[in-house]
Amino acid sequence: MNDQFDFVEDGGVTSPAGFSACGVCAGLKRNGSADMALIVSDCDCSFAGTFTSNLFPAAPVRYCREICATSGKVRAVTVNSGVANACTGLEGYENAKKTAALTAEVLGFESSKVLVASTGRIGVQLPMNKLEKGIREAAKNLSHTGGSAAAHAIMTTDTRPKELAVSFVVDGKKVTVGGCCKGAGMIAPKMVTAPHATMLCFLTTDADAENAYLAEVLGKAVEASFNKITVDNDMSTNDTVLLMANGKSGMKISAKSAASDLFERAVQMIAEHLARSIVFDGEGVTKFVSVEVSGAVDKQDAELCARAIANSPLCKTAWFGCDPNWGRILAAAGYSGAVFSPENVTLFFDELPVVRGGLDAGTPENELAEILKRREFSVKINLGEGNASCMVWTGDFTYDYVKINADYHT
Amino acid sequence: MNDQFDFVEDGGVTSPAGFSACGVCAGLKRNGSADMALIVSDCDCSFAGTFTSNLFPAAPVRYCREICATSGKVRAVTVNSGVANACTGLEGYENAKKTAALTAEVLGFESSKVLVASTGRIGVQLPMNKLEKGIREAAKNLSHTGGSAAAHAIMTTDTRPKELAVSFVVDGKKVTVGGCCKGAGMIAPKMVTAPHATMLCFLTTDADAENAYLAEVLGKAVEASFNKITVDNDMSTNDTVLLMANGKSGMKISAKSAASDLFERAVQMIAEHLARSIVFDGEGVTKFVSVEVSGAVDKQDAELCARAIANSPLCKTAWFGCDPNWGRILAAAGYSGAVFSPENVTLFFDELPVVRGGLDAGTPENELAEILKRREFSVKINLGEGNASCMVWTGDFTYDYVKINADYHT
Repeated sequence: MNDQFDFVEDGGVTSPAGFSACGVCAGLKRNGSADMALIVSDCDCSFAGTFTSNLFPAAPVRYCREICATSGKVRAVTVNSGVANACTGLEGYENAKKTAALTAEVLGFESSKVLVASTGRIGVQLPMNKLEKGIREAAKNLSHTGGSAAAHAIMTTDTRPKELAVSFVVDGKKVTVGGCCKGAGMIAPKMVTAPHATMLCFLTTDADAENAYLAEVLGKAVEASFNKITVDNDMSTNDTVLLMANGKSGMKISAKSAASDLFERAVQMIAEHLARSIVFDGEGVTKFVSVEVSGAVDKQDAELCARAIANSPLCKTAWFGCDPNWGRILAAAGYSGAVFSPENVTLFFDELPVVRGGLDAGTPENELAEILKRREFSVKINLGEGNASCMVWTGDFTYDYVKINADYHT
Repeated sequence: MNDQFDFVEDGGVTSPAGFSACGVCAGLKRNGSADMALIVSDCDCSFAGTFTSNLFPAAPVRYCREICATSGKVRAVTVNSGVANACTGLEGYENAKKTAALTAEVLGFESSKVLVASTGRIGVQLPMNKLEKGIREAAKNLSHTGGSAAAHAIMTTDTRPKELAVSFVVDGKKVTVGGCCKGAGMIAPKMVTAPHATMLCFLTTDADAENAYLAEVLGKAVEASFNKITVDNDMSTNDTVLLMANGKSGMKISAKSAASDLFERAVQMIAEHLARSIVFDGEGVTKFVSVEVSGAVDKQDAELCARAIANSPLCKTAWFGCDPNWGRILAAAGYSGAVFSPENVTLFFDELPVVRGGLDAGTPENELAEILKRREFSVKINLGEGNASCMVWTGDFTYDYVKINADYHT
């Protein structure tokens, strides 16, 4: 499938034509590293956004939802790390609005064309004087190769930036989709309600597309990527995924156009890569585990079972210890709420059988332990009831997870 | 309230008249410590049991459920630690049955009068030759002061035995209720379906009562104790609470008798103490946290909210770090599924206000941190919506939790 796509070398949000970005130090982070990013398009963009379904949506989430509902076009997104601007009431909301207004003023376009996003400590107000200086500084540093600097500036407990861009050619026109994201903890999207999303992710493209179509494409991509990952089962107040399309490629794409399939696959490829990168870079994570449930009665059961296993502290610590303690996996399936008969259950670790008919399949423990030593492996459970399936990506639970989150004082 | 009750010094399952017990080494544990307990009544007992609702109930759970459904009286319970006898199929079930039969044979009464319980590694078959030797050894060691030995023998990752007994006097007759339990990890009862329970707990009394009444008393007590605790949100395959009443006190108690209130409070007191002891001794736990939700629309919302906070890895690691990071608590409430308006939420740590109207209440962070340094404290959140409430007892998440569960190879 990938032979139709080119992976852009060192690609990110500025790989699509007409996007510039940068990262600067506004002074929000005590350690003095970059904490503000600006992503700007040379011209107006169609756009779509998905957001957390937490009952405490952060101020920038509330602000962006309004922009999504009322504004037809956008030009820029201003992001800060260090202060989440969540649980900050009216003052927090006004600060989000002011951030947009300041950005718009400095860049010279209407306030309604600026989106904002924040990540960091909850319950703290944004220091607006620092932010204002940061915005002015950022506006001077914008560059068509600044995607990587932006990806760095939005990090919190992330250990590395996460970005990617792919391009494809249709009718002699090259279309590029790029993106970056941040996230390592407080990672667990909520599936049941739309709109949904997880953590901060910014997707850009030079395709020419309508808002409604972008919303459809983004919704599907998020469902199959960010909504399938969990680091700690803690859904954030700030989760945001934004997609901006500036049309610079000259290639018009809609649901009915021939190129729609390529475009949607490109967006999904970027979203999936970035979502998986979040788990790989999850707080303290040493293993990437695909929990694949099949044979469930329906989608909901498959999801319940996959999430129970993926979020079980006992399963996650066993994976960290390379202990093929499959009883913990079956116990999690057994309390997940999914309906099935224990005697029909089959379990594999990658290619090795672990459980058949609800009982030990007899594979020697040391062989199973070898699988768990891999950086990446699959836990495949078949409930033997129906045809529904679900895959969730997760990590292990380690000393470092506890350390990062017991010692993290912004 | 407690002036009507006497706490029995070093009390446990053998404090009620007519019960004997012991703990022996059957050789199931590699470290050679005691791993088999026997609790026996001098005469027939009425009884009641509650069990895990995990879809993979262990063989002894399946066996005990049958005894509960078919047998009017019991005399003994045989418990082993080290091997859970869960996910062991027909062979496991036959081994549970055989354990009961061997015990009955050695003690000289019918097989249907013996209950069994197991805890330890899932997926491993019981070594029946060792178990048989253990049963014969145990039968010789029974003693009316052996409750503590039994409490020790059922431990796995527990660091200390958990037992208690109280007595009260009615009409010149002394009634005693005693109990012991084990549990430190894989602790999270499931509330939604009855019968329910968590971990192994054995309650004894010399009251004279009918099975149906005992079931009612036990059900209420379990709901308000074991069903309110969570260490790691992992429900076990073996959870069992048994209550045996041998009538030796000569005091007949039923739902309508004057002493029923005292009796029920005694059972609840023991159950609550033992349930709290499990959290205090939870794997790696350094803090005991009461999560108290009030002002919820209904019971279900209150419970959802309390459990989301109590099980949030981010809240639990913050408590370990003595970090008053209340944003994590609000975020957990916000994704719990409970319905409320963020701007009405109030949060207290013990006596100190943390959040008012969904915003920082202004108490200095160092004062809040002092609360979190306590061995025991309360997180009290009022959702400001209605009158329903729920309390859940939980612990923090520590390096030791990860260590215990990454390194635990039976």
